[in-house]
Amino acid sequence: MNGAEALVRTAVAAGIDTCFANPGTTEMHLVAALDAVPGMRSVLGVFEGVCTGAADGYGRMADRPALTLLHLGPGFASGLANLHNARRAFTPIVNLIGDHPTWHVAHDAPLTSDIESLARPMSKWVRTSATSQALAADFADAVAASLSAPTGVASLVIPADCAWDPAPDALPRPAPRPAAKVDEVALEAAAIALKPGSRSVLLLGGGALREATLRQAARIAAVSGCRIMVDSFVSRLERGPGLPRVERVPYFPEQITESLRGVSHLVVAGTREPVAFFGYPSRGSRPVPPECQIVALGGVEHDLLPALEALAERLGAGIPPQAGKIERPSLPAGPLTPATLGAAIAGLQPENAIVVDEAATSGLPYWLQSGALPPHSLLGLTGGAIGQGLPCATGAAVACPDRPVIAIQADGSGLYTAQALWTQAREGLDVTTIVCANREYRILRVELARAGIAQPGEQALQLTSLRGPDIDWVGLGRGFGVPSARVETADQLVAKLRRALVEPGPHLIEAIL
Amino acid sequence: MNGAEALVRTAVAAGIDTCFANPGTTEMHLVAALDAVPGMRSVLGVFEGVCTGAADGYGRMADRPALTLLHLGPGFASGLANLHNARRAFTPIVNLIGDHPTWHVAHDAPLTSDIESLARPMSKWVRTSATSQALAADFADAVAASLSAPTGVASLVIPADCAWDPAPDALPRPAPRPAAKVDEVALEAAAIALKPGSRSVLLLGGGALREATLRQAARIAAVSGCRIMVDSFVSRLERGPGLPRVERVPYFPEQITESLRGVSHLVVAGTREPVAFFGYPSRGSRPVPPECQIVALGGVEHDLLPALEALAERLGAGIPPQAGKIERPSLPAGPLTPATLGAAIAGLQPENAIVVDEAATSGLPYWLQSGALPPHSLLGLTGGAIGQGLPCATGAAVACPDRPVIAIQADGSGLYTAQALWTQAREGLDVTTIVCANREYRILRVELARAGIAQPGEQALQLTSLRGPDIDWVGLGRGFGVPSARVETADQLVAKLRRALVEPGPHLIEAIL
Repeated sequence: MNGAEALVRTAVAAGIDTCFANPGTTEMHLVAALDAVPGMRSVLGVFEGVCTGAADGYGRMADRPALTLLHLGPGFASGLANLHNARRAFTPIVNLIGDHPTWHVAHDAPLTSDIESLARPMSKWVRTSATSQALAADFADAVAASLSAPTGVASLVIPADCAWDPAPDALPRPAPRPAAKVDEVALEAAAIALKPGSRSVLLLGGGALREATLRQAARIAAVSGCRIMVDSFVSRLERGPGLPRVERVPYFPEQITESLRGVSHLVVAGTREPVAFFGYPSRGSRPVPPECQIVALGGVEHDLLPALEALAERLGAGIPPQAGKIERPSLPAGPLTPATLGAAIAGLQPENAIVVDEAATSGLPYWLQSGALPPHSLLGLTGGAIGQGLPCATGAAVACPDRPVIAIQADGSGLYTAQALWTQAREGLDVTTIVCANREYRILRVELARAGIAQPGEQALQLTSLRGPDIDWVGLGRGFGVPSARVETADQLVAKLRRALVEPGPHLIEAIL
Repeated sequence: MNGAEALVRTAVAAGIDTCFANPGTTEMHLVAALDAVPGMRSVLGVFEGVCTGAADGYGRMADRPALTLLHLGPGFASGLANLHNARRAFTPIVNLIGDHPTWHVAHDAPLTSDIESLARPMSKWVRTSATSQALAADFADAVAASLSAPTGVASLVIPADCAWDPAPDALPRPAPRPAAKVDEVALEAAAIALKPGSRSVLLLGGGALREATLRQAARIAAVSGCRIMVDSFVSRLERGPGLPRVERVPYFPEQITESLRGVSHLVVAGTREPVAFFGYPSRGSRPVPPECQIVALGGVEHDLLPALEALAERLGAGIPPQAGKIERPSLPAGPLTPATLGAAIAGLQPENAIVVDEAATSGLPYWLQSGALPPHSLLGLTGGAIGQGLPCATGAAVACPDRPVIAIQADGSGLYTAQALWTQAREGLDVTTIVCANREYRILRVELARAGIAQPGEQALQLTSLRGPDIDWVGLGRGFGVPSARVETADQLVAKLRRALVEPGPHLIEAIL
């Protein structure tokens, strides 16, 4: 057995069975081990950002790490943007990054670079293996790190000789550190803040957005009268008639301030006090108004389900509220706008869908229209690094082959990682992508105005436009092997979307806004 | 004047006039400054690897830095792979990387990351500006660093408040450090090694591959009888009838050893001793055979033209040899193979073409067939980070609007940064891309065999295949707005290529191999 086989065996024994790969020469023994060891499925991405974004989507849905297999520093670097999103989503991922053999690194061959320096900003754990004897144990440590609370991204650099040299038979078992218990003081402070009539807000994020925790939050809200808010960009939010309808923390800092005006306490669980997504001249970083006291119940490192349950008990909460009624917007007709686009999706979305939202400025109506739909999971752009949607949808579909996946995708953002469409085609994944084609970086037009640039000049207009020539998403989709169509009215969108959602395999609909 | 305007003014005053940009919110004031200050052309890339690769191609042709304008850590990270190639090509580039305002970084907003840690591996110079007062001076230092010998990549992180706060009027002037003089001892050693009859090789790289240095090398070879070799992957090699026909250092280490068998001295100028591109089991890092003595004339940090001239004089060399005859392969017919593909391109290539070679396994015949063509520049994959060809061709075309650009592009590599095609379309660049579509990562099939995996398993085959579905480059090209066609015979390629080379603007030809 060589190091590569020992690693893959260790992975399979630990329940890890999926590897999103874009390997090169230094990874050939790891590739061979994927065949030699039964139980590991490899999925090719033809760009590294597809692999890391898919691992993010997979990990959010599977709650266990997928592997990525990437090629030295430059190949790994191209996956960093989506690892940034994964880091902000606290997604468990284990990156395997091939490197030159240990004895070759010092010779500074063309592909040599400082991989650890690249890995550190987006990883909670980084190590370079030193020998094939230690490789499987290093890998087990990486898995443990990725699964230890708070979960996250672990990056293991594997010099090629550590993969090809002999390794011991024993398979180390990863031993993740469990989540911390929320302490009494925090519980008591939260209970005081949430006492009935207190005009408080319970802000949830991270692992607190799952079904069980949300049910406890609903109990708390019923007795306390508090509002429930969630992070602007959620890693994975469960929604459905049995779960509370939540508000999202708004995007712009002045909107956050407005949304919390008159709130006495902001009780935070699974996330942190909201900060401005971007800083603006003469506006601060902390938009929570001064009258609103922040009470930290627990962060991403805490075990939040028992904490929320204890809090509910302490408040004397009853059983979870009755399931609400399912409400869908009526199917739209006429011009295609963000509102009719949102209504079409919310109107047709199948039960148990996974919705990946990288719609940017086109997505707000969908959020408002989808609050009372049948059960579904919503995955958001946690780190703000665009190019997340298509890969994330790909990985979610790999993790959950029995659930339909819908990607609501801004056109500008989609261009960063459109190669994910090919992986969807090759793997026959049930992903329906709706490209919101407004043919500009519309958020930047907004941001130019916010920066005081009321009359953008020619270059500012060109740098925020996707016209001249217009991107043809139908051409791109078909180029990657995905059946694709363009729609220009809401009626057409409804017709195409209805069809795409029943046909197996991936589809792309370019919705001209 | 704010910091952003001071920076752009400083750039224009220093002769920098091109900015490859993919900006976001933190860069809006820099975008506004591109309009406010006359003399800077901005070029949008819809993926960051396009911007950095274009800056690489531009810098190789213009010998002065282009700017890139990129969005915080994740946006910058997506440009790193091509910065790796630029670093290995010693291309002058100045990256402007927007960041949160100084007062906002500590709040760890979603897009916050350690940008310097990401920048260091691919940059020779990294700094984060502290104030708007210092921004223009920091930028001048970045330009100086990028132009100081050896030239390279400088990365300046710009907190948004440094761009929007007021700045002084005075424009600092970059003061690059000149190249080092080659010393007498090295010259004398080289002269001894290259004495007539010595069976030596003169190995050139970096800045020694330009016309003037190559003419001196030709004088030296004429008197010494030495062979002239160049790095496997050249930053920019000038070729033409007045210049020596050179050998390329082979790719695999055992081929390097073979090519230098019986050579007494390897005199190295503008590069280093060749090392193995990858390390293999039981093969070393240094393929130069032991009987071949390495003599360093000068490295990338040296001023090589006077050194080679002095060496030629010392050897008693005469005037440069007569220009050789122009020879083109005859235009091919019949099946499309790497050989007929190479012959078609070499047979039709216009005078003064810039040829960007990321053809990987399909490119060797072209190299052999193009040794006696009319004058042209050849740009190679210096760092081995694939996805360089299309962006590099884009930037070269921006730098040299009067020269036709030909990109010979492997299909697997092209998929990493195909978005460059859109920039070619928008800017109306005269780039003809020939996609060598063998529909696999063929080099990895070779590498699997070299790794002893004679019978690759199913997953190894899938991870090295671009089939199922086949990528449709015509769809992708048209999706990005570039007129595109597919050819399946050499005759078809000749016909399409002839047309593409006379029509203005970009074209793509998918050549099915």
